Amino acid sequence: MDKIKIGIIGAGGYGGCGSIELFYRHPDAEIRALIDTQDVGKSISDLYPHLKGFCDLPLMAPDNPDCPEDFDAVFFATPDGVGQKEASSWFEKGVKIIDFSGDFRFNDPETYRGYADRIGRTQAHLSPELLPRSVYGLAELHRKEIANSDLVGNPGCFAVSCILGLSPAIDSKLIEPESIICDAKTGVSGAGKTPNPTFHYPARYESMNAYKISGHQHVYEIERELGILGGQEIKITFTPHVVPLTRGILTTIYARLKEGSDLERVKDAYRAFYRDDLFVRIFGSDEPLVSVNVRGSNFCNISLNVDERTGRLIVVSLIDNLMKGQAGSAVQNMNIMFGLEESSGLLHPGMYP
Amino acid sequence: MDKIKIGIIGAGGYGGCGSIELFYRHPDAEIRALIDTQDVGKSISDLYPHLKGFCDLPLMAPDNPDCPEDFDAVFFATPDGVGQKEASSWFEKGVKIIDFSGDFRFNDPETYRGYADRIGRTQAHLSPELLPRSVYGLAELHRKEIANSDLVGNPGCFAVSCILGLSPAIDSKLIEPESIICDAKTGVSGAGKTPNPTFHYPARYESMNAYKISGHQHVYEIERELGILGGQEIKITFTPHVVPLTRGILTTIYARLKEGSDLERVKDAYRAFYRDDLFVRIFGSDEPLVSVNVRGSNFCNISLNVDERTGRLIVVSLIDNLMKGQAGSAVQNMNIMFGLEESSGLLHPGMYP
Amino acid sequence: MDKIKIGIIGAGGYGGCGSIELFYRHPDAEIRALIDTQDVGKSISDLYPHLKGFCDLPLMAPDNPDCPEDFDAVFFATPDGVGQKEASSWFEKGVKIIDFSGDFRFNDPETYRGYADRIGRTQAHLSPELLPRSVYGLAELHRKEIANSDLVGNPGCFAVSCILGLSPAIDSKLIEPESIICDAKTGVSGAGKTPNPTFHYPARYESMNAYKISGHQHVYEIERELGILGGQEIKITFTPHVVPLTRGILTTIYARLKEGSDLERVKDAYRAFYRDDLFVRIFGSDEPLVSVNVRGSNFCNISLNVDERTGRLIVVSLIDNLMKGQAGSAVQNMNIMFGLEESSGLLHPGMYP
Amino acid sequence: MDKIKIGIIGAGGYGGCGSIELFYRHPDAEIRALIDTQDVGKSISDLYPHLKGFCDLPLMAPDNPDCPEDFDAVFFATPDGVGQKEASSWFEKGVKIIDFSGDFRFNDPETYRGYADRIGRTQAHLSPELLPRSVYGLAELHRKEIANSDLVGNPGCFAVSCILGLSPAIDSKLIEPESIICDAKTGVSGAGKTPNPTFHYPARYESMNAYKISGHQHVYEIERELGILGGQEIKITFTPHVVPLTRGILTTIYARLKEGSDLERVKDAYRAFYRDDLFVRIFGSDEPLVSVNVRGSNFCNISLNVDERTGRLIVVSLIDNLMKGQAGSAVQNMNIMFGLEESSGLLHPGMYP
Repeated sequence: MDKIKIGIIGAGGYGGCGSIELFYRHPDAEIRALIDTQDVGKSISDLYPHLKGFCDLPLMAPDNPDCPEDFDAVFFATPDGVGQKEASSWFEKGVKIIDFSGDFRFNDPETYRGYADRIGRTQAHLSPELLPRSVYGLAELHRKEIANSDLVGNPGCFAVSCILGLSPAIDSKLIEPESIICDAKTGVSGAGKTPNPTFHYPARYESMNAYKISGHQHVYEIERELGILGGQEIKITFTPHVVPLTRGILTTIYARLKEGSDLERVKDAYRAFYRDDLFVRIFGSDEPLVSVNVRGSNFCNISLNVDERTGRLIVVSLIDNLMKGQAGSAVQNMNIMFGLEESSGLLHPGMYP
Repeated sequence: MDKIKIGIIGAGGYGGCGSIELFYRHPDAEIRALIDTQDVGKSISDLYPHLKGFCDLPLMAPDNPDCPEDFDAVFFATPDGVGQKEASSWFEKGVKIIDFSGDFRFNDPETYRGYADRIGRTQAHLSPELLPRSVYGLAELHRKEIANSDLVGNPGCFAVSCILGLSPAIDSKLIEPESIICDAKTGVSGAGKTPNPTFHYPARYESMNAYKISGHQHVYEIERELGILGGQEIKITFTPHVVPLTRGILTTIYARLKEGSDLERVKDAYRAFYRDDLFVRIFGSDEPLVSVNVRGSNFCNISLNVDERTGRLIVVSLIDNLMKGQAGSAVQNMNIMFGLEESSGLLHPGMYP
Repeated sequence: MDKIKIGIIGAGGYGGCGSIELFYRHPDAEIRALIDTQDVGKSISDLYPHLKGFCDLPLMAPDNPDCPEDFDAVFFATPDGVGQKEASSWFEKGVKIIDFSGDFRFNDPETYRGYADRIGRTQAHLSPELLPRSVYGLAELHRKEIANSDLVGNPGCFAVSCILGLSPAIDSKLIEPESIICDAKTGVSGAGKTPNPTFHYPARYESMNAYKISGHQHVYEIERELGILGGQEIKITFTPHVVPLTRGILTTIYARLKEGSDLERVKDAYRAFYRDDLFVRIFGSDEPLVSVNVRGSNFCNISLNVDERTGRLIVVSLIDNLMKGQAGSAVQNMNIMFGLEESSGLLHPGMYP
Repeated sequence: MDKIKIGIIGAGGYGGCGSIELFYRHPDAEIRALIDTQDVGKSISDLYPHLKGFCDLPLMAPDNPDCPEDFDAVFFATPDGVGQKEASSWFEKGVKIIDFSGDFRFNDPETYRGYADRIGRTQAHLSPELLPRSVYGLAELHRKEIANSDLVGNPGCFAVSCILGLSPAIDSKLIEPESIICDAKTGVSGAGKTPNPTFHYPARYESMNAYKISGHQHVYEIERELGILGGQEIKITFTPHVVPLTRGILTTIYARLKEGSDLERVKDAYRAFYRDDLFVRIFGSDEPLVSVNVRGSNFCNISLNVDERTGRLIVVSLIDNLMKGQAGSAVQNMNIMFGLEESSGLLHPGMYP
């Protein structure tokens, strides 16, 4: 079989870099072109010298006439607004699309509007006709729809962590939905590669902070996905924090157990819900979950605990924000969309220490 | 006036080191002797070479006959069990005591029993007669009792962060007590200077984790202090996390606002409660709180936020675990016990970057 | 072809962990047993949870009768003294040996004696008869001997960095041998996984230091290899430093250029010397070498510079101490010993950021 | 006595911040105004919130008519080019000047020209008439001239480290001047507070590199000062490196001992040379020098070692680049210029851990 031909738009960012690292090891897909509006003409291995000899493709401008066009799939590793402007022309040619932003995470214009409000985007969606064709790209919830779709909105990194940590409890109605609190801690790479004063090394090496308290845009997709799953409107409290490490999201999730729920029922529900999900691993309360153990891999590690004194479920959910939270999920989605083994190119333990 | 003469027992640990750094700048107190059971005979500046020329006292064994005894105050910078064994002989001589462990944080044997159970200590308290004389050493709650006491149980670092973050809301009955969740993130120094695999540099530099989920011993003193203040039993959920930095505790506190409470009332209550407390600073939702800003100082920075969508108060409480969470509070207590200016030796901004 | 069957002795350390990560991706070799004297009975994935599902073999005691013995090769990822005691019994059975310590880096007892003196080992070598059969395992210098050998002494991490950085200049007689100074900076993982006060996170996160000034044991093998190559005795000054990162050795090498040498001749010599060496990459003075670019990979990046004002060659040599400096070189040696593609299992770019 | 009134120009950078931290503790000087061209109108404690309550002065534009002018001394904590443009008007009013850049480190236009060439500055010095009035501000070499001067060029951070590490050996003619190599490792704060891709946290947390190999501008002042001291032209090789920590410069200095020199003579020479220098501390080979031990303090720690095998002196010189390497030296110079105790405001051990 010919290899699947991939184009990456926005290839120069961390999302592009992570995708390239994964495709190097993918047996059935290969990168044909790297497209970006910055650093045009440079080799990707000038930006990321560890790729030297592994991927030395140049960054091409989107309108470069020499740019290959015979892609089977295009990754939009771009910020909000790019995919909705440019995806439709690819889509019409039959190219499958995976978009890393919020542009295609909501499959109707009205729902998208609610998201756009949160990110301060006043413009209407530029490709509203595509929205009903799009699928929310979290394989553990939407594997079948992804398999049948040509347009996937890759989920937000915090959303992956929260949704995977909560879905079985919501699905099995084990917790009080209005009691949910998600306290997330992320490494700095989640903010991308553009330097800013907050992430300047001397300002960050010994500092942590909360930000966007009760106002982060990922709340919107978390509540929507959990609401669909639970069959009722769900509102959560979500507080993101930045801590001085590079890769990893650890989300501590609190929710009141319903009458009759206990740790055993919770464990059973999680194991059953994820029984076919290779990349989700369930741990008990007595096993320590340390974020470095998912660094560089596509796994989500989940530990289940109950605070007997207060009747609360406490879930700790761990991912690498650049892998299961971004490029890893994207490749997993691509595998599903093309009927490949879902884990193809993704079965790696990461690196320690 | 003669300077207050201080002895530090357990001087070789981080609590001792932090105290020495503070006393160097203290106008009215001076260290007379450093006592420890480890590294006996070494100079403290061999252990902590930055102190060379500032404090070169030797570490003396507790039973060294040459050890000075004419202390006005003794700091027990020791783990649980030491103070309760050794404090009484000093106490009887009229020496004022500040103990860094849980030994004197509870002023009756029965309450202490509850704490001892949590730390797996089966023995009864060794100086039960002293317990009624002891005061919980959080100046912002117990300034007057501390001023009149000769025996202070310095609070746990997490407890300082949680109690200061919650007291005004409890005192003014603005929140539902059964809804309180404290999600704490601490730097590594909170675990002390003894190396272990978890805090080995390669294991920690890029890793975070939750631990003692719903089982940390500081919960006990938090619930007790809040319960006394609120006039009712209070049970909280508390989850500590370790993140890869050295100094700082950031606790994110969640609680449901009572009917009629709002951000303005909350702010008023906090400002009023802490109007005489130099070391507590209240910030609004729009001001970023970054942990490095309290590093090396005795301040507790608190930001107040309300999640309107879910009706929750979200308090972010920041301290340096080695200062306001340990040695800083100890010196503050000593100042109060001796009738000195409460901030004496403590008015320093820390260091940046 | 059947896969090569590997046993790893001392599997629980960083050297074992790194080897396991590499073998997971190796097409022609597989691990049959993990042997250690510590943590016996535990699964390797209990020690290193990122390996869960990738390698869950138990750690077996060396004398466990159930331990498989049908190895084609054994890695001694053990400290000095273990291989020389235990290797001969394997060697006699025809098992190929790669030892990570200094035990087999010197192929006669007298030379070994010089090394043993430096590490304070008074005992004579326990398998002197094996020494003439051993080869120094730096493929770029001894590829042919390694191919014909059944016993390889894997080089020290600092030695890899220094020898690769100097060999072409020595070989082509471009520098004054008595003028060589190697100033090495290493990450903390070089000291292994056993916690100690120096590498406790709070002691290290913001600290660097020189150590073993002019007394590090790797000097011995560096001088020996360079001496053989240069056909004369060579004495260097070597100072190791520890800096607060986990993986990487950056060695800055200074030497006076001989009359008539210049940057162009140096570049030509290095390119010629390494023309068949996939894992050595030569860079000019204008290309920045950053250590993270070799993190997790088996490459040695070398930049060549001349200080015209003083007539000195300045070579910057970069490796990942756990890869080209340890497990990566070991697998590279194994590939050569078994006639496999030298880069088999090793062609990975590492991970960024 | 009235306090000395200080104005700081360029107050918003790390040099300004460090000076403010020091003046807060200075008994005889106080800051009257903070001047900058960026963040004008903001309080300094908005930029550096740890200063809240300690210094809340606004940043004023240089041309603000409300800006106080009755300074006794002005600190130019500004990059090259500012002081030479603006200092003369202050100087004429009798205000003492300390400039943090290279503008006044060379006391004649021709020497300055050599420096300007290295930093790519084509313009002639803007205040050549001031140059003969200026003094190189390293107190340990020029205490008397500083005491008699109104214009001091504060030394470069690397220069402080190298010059203090070499001066006694040069002065006593113990080493071969043409053999000197300085290998410097610096923390990231040396590059200032402006974010850039190289110092973005994810790019730096696990990376080190050499830069400006044989081309750093501080070489110029090092060679000049050592040349004056040694009475002959001296050319050194100097390579700076950045390592992932925030504060600290560790320079490892290599030089061939002259016939007849040995470690004892070296130690004697260093102790004699620095006998009146409170801020230089000499250590023997057996005492470990760790950079965190000078963090936040004005000390330079120096360890002396001889590599007997190669006849080289190896000096390790440690400073905090923001203290003895910048603001600390500036305050020390100010103390000397005003006839105060040289250590006034500077006697602090820093902070650990």
